[in-house]
This record gives sequence, structure tokens and C-alpha cells, in this order.
Amino acid sequence: MQGTMIYRLRDIRFEDVPEPKIEKPTDAIIRLAVTCVCGSDLWPYRGIQAVETPTPMGHEYCGYVEEVGHAVKSVKLGQFVVGSFAMSDNSCPHCRVGYQSSCQQREWVSRAQAPFMRVALADGTLVATPDLPSKEMLPSLLAASDVLGTGWFAADAANVKQGSTVVVVGDGAVGLLGVLSAKQMGAQRIIAMSRHPARQKLAKEFGATDIVTQRGDDGVTRIKDLTEGIGADSVLECVGTQESMMQAIRCTRPGGFVSYVGVPHGVELDSEQLFFSHVHLHGGPAPVRRYLPELIGLVLDGKINPGKVFDLTLPLAQVAEGYRAMDERKAIKVLLQP
Amino acid sequence: MQGTMIYRLRDIRFEDVPEPKIEKPTDAIIRLAVTCVCGSDLWPYRGIQAVETPTPMGHEYCGYVEEVGHAVKSVKLGQFVVGSFAMSDNSCPHCRVGYQSSCQQREWVSRAQAPFMRVALADGTLVATPDLPSKEMLPSLLAASDVLGTGWFAADAANVKQGSTVVVVGDGAVGLLGVLSAKQMGAQRIIAMSRHPARQKLAKEFGATDIVTQRGDDGVTRIKDLTEGIGADSVLECVGTQESMMQAIRCTRPGGFVSYVGVPHGVELDSEQLFFSHVHLHGGPAPVRRYLPELIGLVLDGKINPGKVFDLTLPLAQVAEGYRAMDERKAIKVLLQP
Repeated sequence: MQGTMIYRLRDIRFEDVPEPKIEKPTDAIIRLAVTCVCGSDLWPYRGIQAVETPTPMGHEYCGYVEEVGHAVKSVKLGQFVVGSFAMSDNSCPHCRVGYQSSCQQREWVSRAQAPFMRVALADGTLVATPDLPSKEMLPSLLAASDVLGTGWFAADAANVKQGSTVVVVGDGAVGLLGVLSAKQMGAQRIIAMSRHPARQKLAKEFGATDIVTQRGDDGVTRIKDLTEGIGADSVLECVGTQESMMQAIRCTRPGGFVSYVGVPHGVELDSEQLFFSHVHLHGGPAPVRRYLPELIGLVLDGKINPGKVFDLTLPLAQVAEGYRAMDERKAIKVLLQP
Repeated sequence: MQGTMIYRLRDIRFEDVPEPKIEKPTDAIIRLAVTCVCGSDLWPYRGIQAVETPTPMGHEYCGYVEEVGHAVKSVKLGQFVVGSFAMSDNSCPHCRVGYQSSCQQREWVSRAQAPFMRVALADGTLVATPDLPSKEMLPSLLAASDVLGTGWFAADAANVKQGSTVVVVGDGAVGLLGVLSAKQMGAQRIIAMSRHPARQKLAKEFGATDIVTQRGDDGVTRIKDLTEGIGADSVLECVGTQESMMQAIRCTRPGGFVSYVGVPHGVELDSEQLFFSHVHLHGGPAPVRRYLPELIGLVLDGKINPGKVFDLTLPLAQVAEGYRAMDERKAIKVLLQP
């Protein structure tokens, strides 16, 4: 079969790769219904994260169970399943407290931009839908696999509650779904920081009450103005740079909560500034598995439509074009059809 | 009158200073019953924090109300009062959510190693005891003013609950009272990191169940061994150095909580390491005022005896000797009698 590899900076190839096989009795093989390009795929694409050797790509997936190892019990052939980018046993001490993305047996998914993939720890990783979903549901179910689960974790880790005032830093797909998540959790006011008209529009559709286009000092001043000088209760940092992180911390009221859900790249926190900011800080790779049953339910019940973040659909074979569109910010998020 | 000044590295003088006066109608003047030297006083004493100009010292205090400004309503002449090192109005938006040490009108206390001092925002800052306390109660009431309140915040910010497994990094007075606080909050296991016999002994009296003498990598390994490889639920970082902060983060289980309550000196947090640690981080200058009524009650009811951290008592005039004893770790904490 053919799958997606990165060779170096801006060099994505769709080429012959080995077919996935059951390697352990706890594995499953799935046929992907849809897959996509993640904002985090752009770090190696842009050379910010080094590519040492040709590397398979893709970690967002949903699809049909093709084969299972003999130890797999809860997932059946033919079922439609969604999983997280962090494969987990869902039973170790870290999983049991809801941190499946720090599972003691964790493995990272890395070959999902392909027609078939192997999922390790299938019983702990995959969640099946009650029935086979309609084609219209696929983008939203795919979103649950990472970008929605990550936005949801951002809102949860930032303690968003009924009545909260929330700021979302970052208008990528995760930030936009952070807006949607905050809305679902009952936030009263959701301020999206974005200077891109299409993304502002989607943020509003998802529940943003205010848009702030300023950044840096001006952005902080604007948030303070909008919150009577107090700052926000909850700030979701969905970028992962030094500037975005400091902006998030400075927008938060003392005693408020900052979450950060993108792998930080070159961010050094000055502890003294953090100390006097008095914020709570929590983040990390989103434990999407914790939220999957609830998120799949919300999607299938039609309560949320996170699939709207996909504004470009391409055949999987044109994956390189998908990376280019996201790199150039011509697309928010690219759906790939095997 | 005479009060305490620092001139430069290791140069503490008890010398003529102006008598405090009511400057604003919200001020009070108190006569100190007892005062003391804080671990944080050692930062300038040791030259780690620069001393640009002769600077008054002392921020822990309790005593008798001598005089009040005409706007002061809740504090009466002759009452015994305890206040926080952060003077606060206790009514601004930050105070109302319990972050009085980030009060919009905050002023820092800085002249408490003296027989008399001015307290700004007296109504918001000071808490009076129901009756004049006995002499035996004075050390514990003084402790509430900072070191107990800070240890309590450390335990609270680290989410210590009934049944928690807790690690305390740092065996200074704050760390020791972090142990006491964790015990009060119902922690099941309290691991104190200390290599100093007198401090280990007091930690055990305050409720420590285990003592770990190792530091750095060995300390982390030991904590993991003691927690079945999982890490602690709550870790109280009560030192404020790079080593102690990283040790705290590495001892915590994914999803666990790290608090830090000493002003960090030269600490840079690597966000990527923090990200993958999956910990919650919260800290800052302790909002002691939030806890004062409860802590004073626990002291007066004889439920806790935080005054045990004072293992050397000196006349106030010998304050320089008190700094020396703490600097050389000959005393845990020095009580000064005006």
C-alpha cells in the first residue's frame, strides 16, 4: 500500500510503505474512513522539529476494524472505531486517573495518513460507535480523535465552568474547538484571539462572544479592558510559542487557570513572572481517550459539529498538497480521503 | 525607636529608624508582641537578591493595636491582631476570590523587625483574636502571619486531600509547616525530603510518615520506589531553586499537583519537560489573609502548634545574630522579642 512519509523540510511523499500487520495479540488493524493533517505535523514540515530520517506521518484516525489480535476483547471486526493519538491500556494507574496520554504502556500513533494502520492496545485505545455512522458524521468523528479532544482538554484543564470568562489564544483548529468546548461547558464569555476573517467567523459559530485581533502587549491590554481590569478566569493556550504562552499568562486573573495543549517549542518560563501572576498552569498531551465516549456521544446526538474545522478535502494521495495548504494558512484543517 | 536594616551582604543593623505614623485614614499602628526572621530574608542577606540601598527588614508580625486611622472600622485599640505580609483591602475582585496577596491595592510589609509598625489597609489586612492570647500562644500566632499560612497555601495549592500521598521538598520552616498542613488536610502519606536530623524530627512530629535524604535523580528514584513507580499526588516545593523545582515536578504523578511558594530565584522552567510531566502547577505569594481566621482558630483551639518551628529566641536587639544562626542553619527559625 501507499502511505505518507516526511523526508525533510517541506518534503512530504505518498509512497510505498509496508502493510500494517498484527504484531502483538493486543493489536488491531483498521481501515481508515478518513484521516487528516494536524497543526503539529507542521513543526517537522517547517523544520522547527528536526527530521533525522524518513518518518511516517499521521496520528488522527477513525475507521473500520479489519483484523484483531487474539487477546482483543472489546473491539469486533467490522465495527467503526475512533482512537486517540496516544495508544493506552486504559487500566494502568495513570489511565485510571484519566491521564491515558501518560499511560505506562503508551505508544504514539505515527502512520495514520494511510489507508490502513495498526493500533496497539486496541481494547484500551479504541472506542466503537453503536452503529456504523453516516458519511456526514465522519469529519466530526475524526475530529474527536485529536483536535476536538485536545480543545476539550484545553477547556477542562483551564477549569472552564458555567459562567466563566474565557480567552482562547490561537485560532488553529485546536483553538477553534477550544471555543466550542468552552461553550459546551457553559462559559458565559469567550474571547477568541484571531486576526483571520474565516477563523473569526468559525469561532463565532462555535460560540465566541468577542474577537480580539491585537497580540502581545496590545492583546493583553485589550483583554484587561474587556474584563474590567481583572483578567480572564480561564485562558486556553493553543499555539505553543514563547509569545503565546506569556500572552496567555498575562491575560489571566490572579487565581485563574491557564492550559497549554500544543507541544511547546523553545518556550522557557520565567518562574518569577509565573509566581507573581498567581495563575494555575496545567497542560500536556491531551488525554483524549478520557473524553472520547462523551465526545462521540455529543457528535452522534448532533449537539456539536466539530467537523466544520475541515475546510479543504483532498484525496489521500494528494496529502503533500494538504500540508502546503495548511502551512500557507490557506486551509484551517485538511481532510484526507483514502 | 530602633529597627532592623540591611546595608549589604551579611550586614544587618539594629539602629535608629523613624517611628511609624498613621499616614492614611485606613492605617493602624501596632506594637509587636513578637517578630522573627524569615527564610526569604536570607536571599538579600546572602547576596542572591541585590541590596541597592539600606533597606528596612521584617514582614512577619502580630501584636497589639496602638492607634488607628479614622476610617478603620473593624480593628479596635488594644486588640491583639495578626496580619499577612501582603497588606490587602480584602474587598477587590482578586481578594474576593481568595488572592489577597494579589490585591489591587497590595502593599508589602517591610518594617516588622521593630517594636512598632504601620499596617496599611488595616481593616482588610488584620484579623483580631477574640481575647488577648497567652504568652505561650504567641509563637504559633506569629507563625500564622507567614510561615504557617505559606505552608498551608502550599498544601492547598497542591490539592492535598483526604488520603493523598504528599511529598514536601525543603525542610525549612515553610516546608515543615507544609507537612503540618498536609496532615491537617488528611494526607495519608507525607514524605519529607530532609537530611538534617533536627528537622527530620520536627517533620515527624508534624506528621511526616517517611523521610527521604536523597536529592536530585536519587531523590526522584527514591520517591518513585516509595510510590510503586507512580509518583506523588501532591508535591510542595518549598525552596525556590532550579534543582528543587525540577525535583518536585519529577516526583509528581501525571495529573498530580505541584505547588511552589518561595519566590523562585533564577529558575527557568523547560516547558517541554513540564508539558510531558502532565502536572498541575500553582503557586505564588501565599494569600495568607484567606486562611488567617481558620489558622488562628486552629492555634487557639490547641489543634496545631506551628510555633515549634522557632528553635531559637533572641531579644530583638540581637537580630543580626538571628540572621547568622539561620544562615548557618544553626536554627530553623528565630523568634525575636521586642
